[in-house]
Amino acid sequence: MRSTPAFQDAYPDDVAHCYGCGRLNEHGHRLKSRWEGEQTVARFTPEAYHTAIPGYVYGGLIASLIDCHGTGTAAAVAARSAGYRLGEDPVPPDQQAPRYVTASLHVDYLAPTPLGPELTVRGVVEDAGEEKGSRKVVTSITVEAEGKVTAKGRVVAVRMPESMIR
Amino acid sequence: MRSTPAFQDAYPDDVAHCYGCGRLNEHGHRLKSRWEGEQTVARFTPEAYHTAIPGYVYGGLIASLIDCHGTGTAAAVAARSAGYRLGEDPVPPDQQAPRYVTASLHVDYLAPTPLGPELTVRGVVEDAGEEKGSRKVVTSITVEAEGKVTAKGRVVAVRMPESMIR
Repeated sequence: MRSTPAFQDAYPDDVAHCYGCGRLNEHGHRLKSRWEGEQTVARFTPEAYHTAIPGYVYGGLIASLIDCHGTGTAAAVAARSAGYRLGEDPVPPDQQAPRYVTASLHVDYLAPTPLGPELTVRGVVEDAGEEKGSRKVVTSITVEAEGKVTAKGRVVAVRMPESMIR
Repeated sequence: MRSTPAFQDAYPDDVAHCYGCGRLNEHGHRLKSRWEGEQTVARFTPEAYHTAIPGYVYGGLIASLIDCHGTGTAAAVAARSAGYRLGEDPVPPDQQAPRYVTASLHVDYLAPTPLGPELTVRGVVEDAGEEKGSRKVVTSITVEAEGKVTAKGRVVAVRMPESMIR
């Protein structure tokens, strides 16, 4: 499952530099999100220096994972609405893979997240933006360590305006 | 103003490793927050690789700056309630500098943030947690680039439980 291409692997080259998830950003986290049934899932192991208080994961990193998994999920949802699976299926020749940006991000830190184990980031689509003219996708996201949910987030993502591409 | 010690410079050594603002984390952002009148202010210039879409700052970094400026402001507010200015005045000998962690973080991305210029992060205290028994401080935070507010956040910070210190 995890060796299949991820949503972010399908982003067009000119918008694949995101510090959180761009495959072309060699300094970044390169988060990879994929469908697992009706959920989207990403797995990420923080570095030792991604710490808040010694022993725990930095909250800003958790927010970053939620952010990028949210925009990735939004892109995958838009692709699904267009009839293909982002990352797994080829992008139809008359289209470009969709790219979303964050309009708002909310994170509740429910418990300290232990630093060391792999984290699992899960996304559930709340609003697929399928109403006519909608460019917005809303996802609920959890972050788990060792089977326990330690943070819960919500991402409102909007289709990236063409004007953002330089 | 900017050469005076910052709130984060007063954090006790054992809780000064935060990736966002710990002075002892050599890989991290080392954000520095200070009082400017009734506001708190931090300034930060992102690296070229802290990008979302080329030309713009990564949203996860913006969330991180808001997060650490929020907890820093909360600590400074608690110190002020205890009668001293965090970073500037010595911590009273019978006390430890206060340290806060994030309970929740909200960020609205109002406009793309240009990558290159120094960012100004401003905090205003909404709830100083001065009610008896309260361990919670709430701050409103803005991020500005070239004089324009591009993101607005809200941080609910709680006094760090002793049990988090390993």
